[in-house]
Amino acid sequence: MTRSLTLLGATGSIGASTLDLVRRNRDAWQVEALTAHCSVAELAALAIEFDAKLAVVGDEACLPALRDALAGSGVEAAAGRAALCEAAARPVDMTVAAIVGCAGLGPVMAAIERGGTIALANKEALVSAGEVMMQAVARHGATLLPTDSEHNAIFQCLNGNRIEDVARITLTASGGPLRTWSQAELDAATPAQAVAHPNWSMGAKISVDSATMMNKGLEYIEAYHLFPVGLDRLHIVVHPQSVVHSMVEFRDRSTLAQLGPSDMRVPIASCLAWPQRMETPLAPLDLAAIGQLTFEPTNEALFPATRLAREAIAAGGSAPAILNAANEVAVAAFLSGQLRFTRIAALVEETLARSNDAPRPASLAEVLDVDQSARRQARSLLETQALV
Amino acid sequence: MTRSLTLLGATGSIGASTLDLVRRNRDAWQVEALTAHCSVAELAALAIEFDAKLAVVGDEACLPALRDALAGSGVEAAAGRAALCEAAARPVDMTVAAIVGCAGLGPVMAAIERGGTIALANKEALVSAGEVMMQAVARHGATLLPTDSEHNAIFQCLNGNRIEDVARITLTASGGPLRTWSQAELDAATPAQAVAHPNWSMGAKISVDSATMMNKGLEYIEAYHLFPVGLDRLHIVVHPQSVVHSMVEFRDRSTLAQLGPSDMRVPIASCLAWPQRMETPLAPLDLAAIGQLTFEPTNEALFPATRLAREAIAAGGSAPAILNAANEVAVAAFLSGQLRFTRIAALVEETLARSNDAPRPASLAEVLDVDQSARRQARSLLETQALV
Repeated sequence: MTRSLTLLGATGSIGASTLDLVRRNRDAWQVEALTAHCSVAELAALAIEFDAKLAVVGDEACLPALRDALAGSGVEAAAGRAALCEAAARPVDMTVAAIVGCAGLGPVMAAIERGGTIALANKEALVSAGEVMMQAVARHGATLLPTDSEHNAIFQCLNGNRIEDVARITLTASGGPLRTWSQAELDAATPAQAVAHPNWSMGAKISVDSATMMNKGLEYIEAYHLFPVGLDRLHIVVHPQSVVHSMVEFRDRSTLAQLGPSDMRVPIASCLAWPQRMETPLAPLDLAAIGQLTFEPTNEALFPATRLAREAIAAGGSAPAILNAANEVAVAAFLSGQLRFTRIAALVEETLARSNDAPRPASLAEVLDVDQSARRQARSLLETQALV
Repeated sequence: MTRSLTLLGATGSIGASTLDLVRRNRDAWQVEALTAHCSVAELAALAIEFDAKLAVVGDEACLPALRDALAGSGVEAAAGRAALCEAAARPVDMTVAAIVGCAGLGPVMAAIERGGTIALANKEALVSAGEVMMQAVARHGATLLPTDSEHNAIFQCLNGNRIEDVARITLTASGGPLRTWSQAELDAATPAQAVAHPNWSMGAKISVDSATMMNKGLEYIEAYHLFPVGLDRLHIVVHPQSVVHSMVEFRDRSTLAQLGPSDMRVPIASCLAWPQRMETPLAPLDLAAIGQLTFEPTNEALFPATRLAREAIAAGGSAPAILNAANEVAVAAFLSGQLRFTRIAALVEETLARSNDAPRPASLAEVLDVDQSARRQARSLLETQALV
């Protein structure tokens, strides 16, 4: 049976992994729409290869180039924020939401409002707009399939169980490339050192987030919204091999864990085929060859980001969106040499402290206002140089 | 809602764990029948404590003592093989089948023929009579909930998934107390050394089976019947910490694993509350405190039992029943000082070789004939002293 698919963010890393799986199962999928920010040539080539009905670029300035690239192909071309949301609102069996950043919020919400089944890879949707999003999911009867490896692991472990039987959800964290560094070494960490992730091949921003543990903090906030067990049942453990992607302990003290290769095609395949399974081209797990899996507690004295995330979600309201926005500003400043590694978390904490009268966002527009305001606050703190 | 329960084998280790859980949830359960082989005083005390309607001893000679012990209690007393089967045939919501050895086969079959839901802890039912049992399960629409920690782990990992999506099932094995011993050391292993299991507190027979790896071989045969994925998708990995109880890898290369304490109350609770969950009095899993989990391949040169089990189930017919019967004779001989540790597997292999024209058992009676005949063959081999 052919199923229809829209892929929001076709030219990024999640998009490439998704299309690799679709390419291997071409008969199973009919592609409705593919979108990109402004990678026109790549988007056009993919739209033609996958016989998409529609290709959309987020940047309206790219529309003429997209029209040229698609001339004669029969693929419809469109551009701009509204066009992204219209693409997301078209009825399909599966939407993969893989647009990075706050640009993805509107299209994700459009897919939710359609009541669709959404493989969600956009972190900002749940970190910044978690309450607004989850209320919309409930209101419109949408189905969220988490695509992040950790949340997908938890989703798989919960399958067939009741959320009220959960005693504890444990997110695993690799600890990142600087896990064993001292405070003095962390103070001097360079961008090149911070982005050298031991297990996952990822972009610079998320690699730095992994090094600061903010990535796990953001995932903690996502997990809070996706799996309503309460903060006291959400934990993090450091697991440097990244083989166990996360775990759920039930009240009988059975723990279910999901394990697998560090390849996003595994959780994406789990979403695409859900509630069944599909082949992926990966090797079987060979634990005898891996030999050992190790676990250790988080070190929030050296890596305070998970504490900040926990405090932000406990505070609720605008705090998670502020945390996320300030972190983006701080990481960009670190990558451009303006901020020391150990001051990333400090800038986030200070931005949160100065924003504590921000209103509780009740809509996506208000979330985006909070986001912009927090970015301004963080940049202003940066410019005072007080924290560098 | 109160559910009715019959516990076959109330005075053994599984029985004690089951009743511990029932005792903690007295309002949830109404006990129909409790059975024992001949521990009259203990059985009577339990029957009175749990307000059972019926208490049965397998040994008819114990009936007068049971009647005395239950006088005035209102608990009905019965004895003998037929009475065990009649107890098992009474309609209840849940039957826990925990009679050890071939004596448990008839009662398990009676519960299956009633189409009941059976928490199955009797190994022999599936090892010796797997084909006959599973055919009866299908015919009568019974539900088997595996209680062995490994099979219960697999059952939990499969929950909500389709058996045809399974790429591989991996049973974990502690490797037993002699895992790191040399051939020469194994030749000289004493019963006391062989029963000193590092993780589980178990009876002498099963502890020796763990030391020879025959326990894992028997579990391999059980898994073959319970989870029809075929021999090439059934594997064993050595995992000395016994934290991961078993794993299922799906064709997308997601692996689900069940972890937990080495306490049978966890898998029993999983069966009793299935498809929901119930509290157990155990501590949460603390992987950061455990620190590391290790995995290594099996060593069939030193521990050939898993090879023998694989060959027996591949041969099918009477071979698994012969393997099990010969192993019981061999382990008893080892425990009484008649047979060297390393000759346990040799006696099993030789018994199998001499029984290769045994007929394929088509009924429980024929399984029991195979069992008796294999025991005679094994004892005869023992008496020739050729293998000692």
